[in-house]
Amino acid sequence: MLHELFTPSVQHALDLVGIFVFAISGALLAVRKNFDVFGIAVLAEVTALGGGLFRDLIIGAVPPAAFSDLGYFITPLLAAVLVFFLHPEVERTQNAVNVFDAAGLGLFCVTGTTKAYDYGLGLTSSAALGLATAVGGGVLRDILANEVPSLLRWDRDLYAVPAIVGATIVALCIRFDTLNAATSGTAIITAFLLRLAAMRYHWRAPRAWNRRSATAEEG
Amino acid sequence: MLHELFTPSVQHALDLVGIFVFAISGALLAVRKNFDVFGIAVLAEVTALGGGLFRDLIIGAVPPAAFSDLGYFITPLLAAVLVFFLHPEVERTQNAVNVFDAAGLGLFCVTGTTKAYDYGLGLTSSAALGLATAVGGGVLRDILANEVPSLLRWDRDLYAVPAIVGATIVALCIRFDTLNAATSGTAIITAFLLRLAAMRYHWRAPRAWNRRSATAEEG
Amino acid sequence: MLHELFTPSVQHALDLVGIFVFAISGALLAVRKNFDVFGIAVLAEVTALGGGLFRDLIIGAVPPAAFSDLGYFITPLLAAVLVFFLHPEVERTQNAVNVFDAAGLGLFCVTGTTKAYDYGLGLTSSAALGLATAVGGGVLRDILANEVPSLLRWDRDLYAVPAIVGATIVALCIRFDTLNAATSGTAIITAFLLRLAAMRYHWRAPRAWNRRSATAEEG
Repeated sequence: MLHELFTPSVQHALDLVGIFVFAISGALLAVRKNFDVFGIAVLAEVTALGGGLFRDLIIGAVPPAAFSDLGYFITPLLAAVLVFFLHPEVERTQNAVNVFDAAGLGLFCVTGTTKAYDYGLGLTSSAALGLATAVGGGVLRDILANEVPSLLRWDRDLYAVPAIVGATIVALCIRFDTLNAATSGTAIITAFLLRLAAMRYHWRAPRAWNRRSATAEEG
Repeated sequence: MLHELFTPSVQHALDLVGIFVFAISGALLAVRKNFDVFGIAVLAEVTALGGGLFRDLIIGAVPPAAFSDLGYFITPLLAAVLVFFLHPEVERTQNAVNVFDAAGLGLFCVTGTTKAYDYGLGLTSSAALGLATAVGGGVLRDILANEVPSLLRWDRDLYAVPAIVGATIVALCIRFDTLNAATSGTAIITAFLLRLAAMRYHWRAPRAWNRRSATAEEG
Repeated sequence: MLHELFTPSVQHALDLVGIFVFAISGALLAVRKNFDVFGIAVLAEVTALGGGLFRDLIIGAVPPAAFSDLGYFITPLLAAVLVFFLHPEVERTQNAVNVFDAAGLGLFCVTGTTKAYDYGLGLTSSAALGLATAVGGGVLRDILANEVPSLLRWDRDLYAVPAIVGATIVALCIRFDTLNAATSGTAIITAFLLRLAAMRYHWRAPRAWNRRSATAEEG
């Protein structure tokens, strides 16, 4: 790693927190879809690890971190067990889950971008992979649940844009050789706050120009 | 390969049998979904080879076996041709197909785990990949057919658990250095019989605690 | 590269044209599904680059061309912007889009087969990957849009067969050591014209033998 943004143990702890909250969102969707305990575990794993898995396959980091770090694999199972037994309570804390999810989004867009750059990708591609790391798990979750990915739907609060902003800040910091724990932290917090604001004020992205919602099939 | 469980020709013949029966299940779903002959072939290929393909990408075994062994590629096409011409007869032998599918499940969870370990993964990750090898093709089949993966649905007989048991036996045997043709065969047969029993007695996995089926969207 | 079919700049220009028209088809589907501007961009990227990405992961060409060539990444974004502002006009030129799409199909089945062979795959596997390169993006597009892949549906004009023919011609040319710009061009044009004819005359692939459409769920 060229870029040790934080001490390894801090980095690892942050990763596990992000993985845990993403896994919660997957497990909750599985409960809503009436999946069995095994489906809950699968959706937790896929949501938490899918984005990083995709990134690692693209950059050739095999086996991916999801399969070489036992903590990454166990954490979503813990989230699945928690949701299995306590899902009404977890649902009731949906706001808290959303806040953590926003933190995971901010964290993963930054670490994803940095890791991709460390493996030799260009700045634009690294930022794109940072975005994919942050949102990929959620897309796989929705595909497995046979739903239109919430990422793509116009009637959901902005999710990708905060990650794009975070990844772009990192790419710019790398470009101008100012990437360090402080600037990375700034990028994480910016993405995090943007996502919180998007949820608070229901910011949405525009649909195609002159689009009327008459033909809405999914919206 | 550290682990030559069986003679290569026996291993290869077993693989082809497993691929064939998985391909039958994919082709039958394609017929039910009213796909054309090409869709039948695609679903046969994906169901038969998808799990192993995923495993090989994760462990960095490129090109994957599916693309380096011509027999692996041709076998699903034969299954597709068979189903194309004889699907009512094949459907009528669904019970026989299910038995073979259970055999494929047992075989692939064992060989998948072994291959992953041979490529340097830890025991837990190897068992997880063994499971993914066994069930991955079916998940991809259902995604392509635009259905909720039958693996995740609570109203289907246990499918993952037999594969988890088989993969776990293999991992334990590796751990205690007792993996050989006899113990591998035991793992295969255990998973196979568990799956047969799950179908015979309609064993199902529980849904989330306190879950009432009132909100069932998919169930 | 063993096979420099065309001068690099010609090859690159052709690739960008194919990527652009594939991206248009993805962006148009996103508009029809009522996705927001970000969903339009994602579907454009996935449709344009998905097939080549899959091929590159299989043959171990990491990072894939989609992430190492900035032009490949930017082109779909341009297509997305175009569709975002002008989608009624673009829809009206659907026939022109279809013609370009057919050209992309012909081009990608040929270059995909050649690249796979260059990376050491056998002839049959190379042709299969050439096909996957040409049609893979469209399949991913439909999965993300939560639709049955149009590739698999019996009620759509032949799409895979032209690509199979093109890929097979290339494989035969390699086999008989006659692959050059002229024979490659012939393969591209053959696939292109076959696809145009399939659209013009509504050629379709047969469904399973004795299949009556009574049970049609998707057809």
